Amino acid sequence: MSSDAQGAAATTGAFRVGLLGHGTVGGAFSDLLEERADEIERFNGRRPVITGVLTRSRGDFEEILAGSDLLVELIGGIEPAREYLLTAMRAGKDVVSANKQLLSQYGEELFETAREHGVRLRFEAAVAGAVPVVRLLEESLAATPIDSVHGIVNGTTNFILSEMAHGSSYAQALAEAQRRGFAEADPSDDVSGRDAAAKMAIIARLAFGTPVHLEDVRYEGIEHLQLDDLEYARELGLGLKLIGTAERRSGGLSVRVHPTFLYAGHPLASVSGPFNAVTVESGMITEITMSGPGAGGPGTASAVLGDVVSVMTGGARPPAPPLPLQLVEDVESAFYLHLDVADQPGVLAAVTQVLGEHEVSIKSVVQRGMGERARLVMVTHPVLESSLRLAIEQVGAFPFVRAAPRAIRVIEEEFL
Amino acid sequence: MSSDAQGAAATTGAFRVGLLGHGTVGGAFSDLLEERADEIERFNGRRPVITGVLTRSRGDFEEILAGSDLLVELIGGIEPAREYLLTAMRAGKDVVSANKQLLSQYGEELFETAREHGVRLRFEAAVAGAVPVVRLLEESLAATPIDSVHGIVNGTTNFILSEMAHGSSYAQALAEAQRRGFAEADPSDDVSGRDAAAKMAIIARLAFGTPVHLEDVRYEGIEHLQLDDLEYARELGLGLKLIGTAERRSGGLSVRVHPTFLYAGHPLASVSGPFNAVTVESGMITEITMSGPGAGGPGTASAVLGDVVSVMTGGARPPAPPLPLQLVEDVESAFYLHLDVADQPGVLAAVTQVLGEHEVSIKSVVQRGMGERARLVMVTHPVLESSLRLAIEQVGAFPFVRAAPRAIRVIEEEFL
Repeated sequence: MSSDAQGAAATTGAFRVGLLGHGTVGGAFSDLLEERADEIERFNGRRPVITGVLTRSRGDFEEILAGSDLLVELIGGIEPAREYLLTAMRAGKDVVSANKQLLSQYGEELFETAREHGVRLRFEAAVAGAVPVVRLLEESLAATPIDSVHGIVNGTTNFILSEMAHGSSYAQALAEAQRRGFAEADPSDDVSGRDAAAKMAIIARLAFGTPVHLEDVRYEGIEHLQLDDLEYARELGLGLKLIGTAERRSGGLSVRVHPTFLYAGHPLASVSGPFNAVTVESGMITEITMSGPGAGGPGTASAVLGDVVSVMTGGARPPAPPLPLQLVEDVESAFYLHLDVADQPGVLAAVTQVLGEHEVSIKSVVQRGMGERARLVMVTHPVLESSLRLAIEQVGAFPFVRAAPRAIRVIEEEFL
Repeated sequence: MSSDAQGAAATTGAFRVGLLGHGTVGGAFSDLLEERADEIERFNGRRPVITGVLTRSRGDFEEILAGSDLLVELIGGIEPAREYLLTAMRAGKDVVSANKQLLSQYGEELFETAREHGVRLRFEAAVAGAVPVVRLLEESLAATPIDSVHGIVNGTTNFILSEMAHGSSYAQALAEAQRRGFAEADPSDDVSGRDAAAKMAIIARLAFGTPVHLEDVRYEGIEHLQLDDLEYARELGLGLKLIGTAERRSGGLSVRVHPTFLYAGHPLASVSGPFNAVTVESGMITEITMSGPGAGGPGTASAVLGDVVSVMTGGARPPAPPLPLQLVEDVESAFYLHLDVADQPGVLAAVTQVLGEHEVSIKSVVQRGMGERARLVMVTHPVLESSLRLAIEQVGAFPFVRAAPRAIRVIEEEFL
């Protein structure tokens, strides 16, 4: 075959991919696509080819759109990514995106547009990097009623907490994460829990069918954690993770992110370093856990290319129309409480009496004298967060309490 | 709308499922399908309905075939399951099966038939129960070059080994597994490693594109493990699992199942009880691990219904035509060695000299005197299995060696 004829054959069978954005992930994606094109053509019959790239300085969106079968959006942020995706879908093009901000804030608009125009919208890389959580929830478990999803969906904070578990301070651990490229120069989106909250909004929509906006997700970060919280927790057999939760509660849905102590047997307790992991619980399947590297160049590129291949294969549908559940704010959790108190008689009695008045029941307690001061560390049985807040406000007002009480949630179920 | 009109509408939109086999899984599947039909109709637009059931005593295959859009095969075994599936695909029907025996022995024939007739053949439940390993390999990682897959793919043996890790003998642990319904009255297919070998044959085909027949997979079971192997291994920081492996080795493919010691940090080391888990490694994604309940009524039914939904959605393609890799038999592993020897001078020197002659290099050793006897427990660096076998044959011939040497593989990579 002459090289001209080969060229013609390649064009006939080509699946044309337009790429919006060419940063770290975009570059890794186009390299990977080129490297894997032969293999994809072998099993799929069509060869994916990048037919246009849009960056800030080059490329024309309309031209790229016209010349492609599918658009991959790796720009990030809200605009112009949102407008590009909506325009592409309205033109009947399938789209793939890795944009968690956009999906957690404008997801319903995008899903609705995909349904209306009968196109596919894939976004595996927006949630947990290379870990195929979207596919698990949308496809494998499409027919399974889900009770809860718990996830470690931010690799930066998981790396920092892993370092702290080995004795680093928060500041040292953050510096190490930045040095190794796991945290950005401005880490606030990660360490505040906001990045995880965006991912949990998307997960909650997929698992429960209920539209959840990023602003509906309550989140706490890891910036205020103290090393001695980790040390005391270790004595109690607990490890500390930043956990996102989406679960049915009181007939509604609770979606939240906060530092959480896990018993050693919990499937997420052993996930360390910059990894992500998600555990889905259902009476039907007990639980399924998936773990792997979080967002980052090659893993994310692999997830994006997996989405491109699934569009080529013809699977994938937009999420079903929404099925609203009430969002529940005040839920029961077990808590770890840390109190810095004067070491004098009657302190434990006074504290436990106030807790009892607010129906906070103690499961375990460790008191340790340190000269004139003492530390009281407790784990409670599950209690409504609002009751716990009232109780610790009152405890914090005692004159013998020397610093603001600290409270961290505990997942106390013990697994097999 | 009158109830007649409703009936007509339901029939128009119905997705007709013919069910072959109505045992534990078949029963759980038809209950689950009925329970979830509303929800599936809501997001899919069509309602799945079971339009015929074939059991040994009732139903007519031809009639069920003619009246269904898709056949679900939950009979198990080779015939008549094979003939039914081939006939259905030749008639243009999509099929779902949970039959690992059939897929590990006649997979290529089934895949070829599916490709030829352009129908879908789904079999998630044949591999790891509710854990969506097939979808991970066929779809999420379709575009990712895979280096290795390690799996705990038999829940019975994992339960038994978990019990043994807590001090039960093999016989006690097996009896407990039978009492709790995790092992059959005749457990030989599970404890011999043959069930895991069938699943690894299927996994290897999906991960590497190479047809692997059950009879190509070397397997060892757990029947001959001794409690003191677990105890010594614990001293060395190792846990014991029945691990299936499929990996690129020496330009070919090695597929095998055997008891394996894992370092505590390995992602499979913390999987206990009747669970399954699979770790996929790739330079691209580091590793992804999935875990969940192994085969059994409701979890398997959930996987089968997930397959039915994916056919309704229109995704799923048959595996690509095969891409043969040479199957490699003799591969390098690190080994744990257990020697029961007379406690006399020169024993360690004699043993290590023989090992050295066969290029078996020692990483760690524990010697413990017990009156006139001593136990030597070693972990080697990676060595070709054939060299190790020759070395221990020669060591076993020493007059001071009091029982056949025992050798168990070790996965020694340390993860993050």
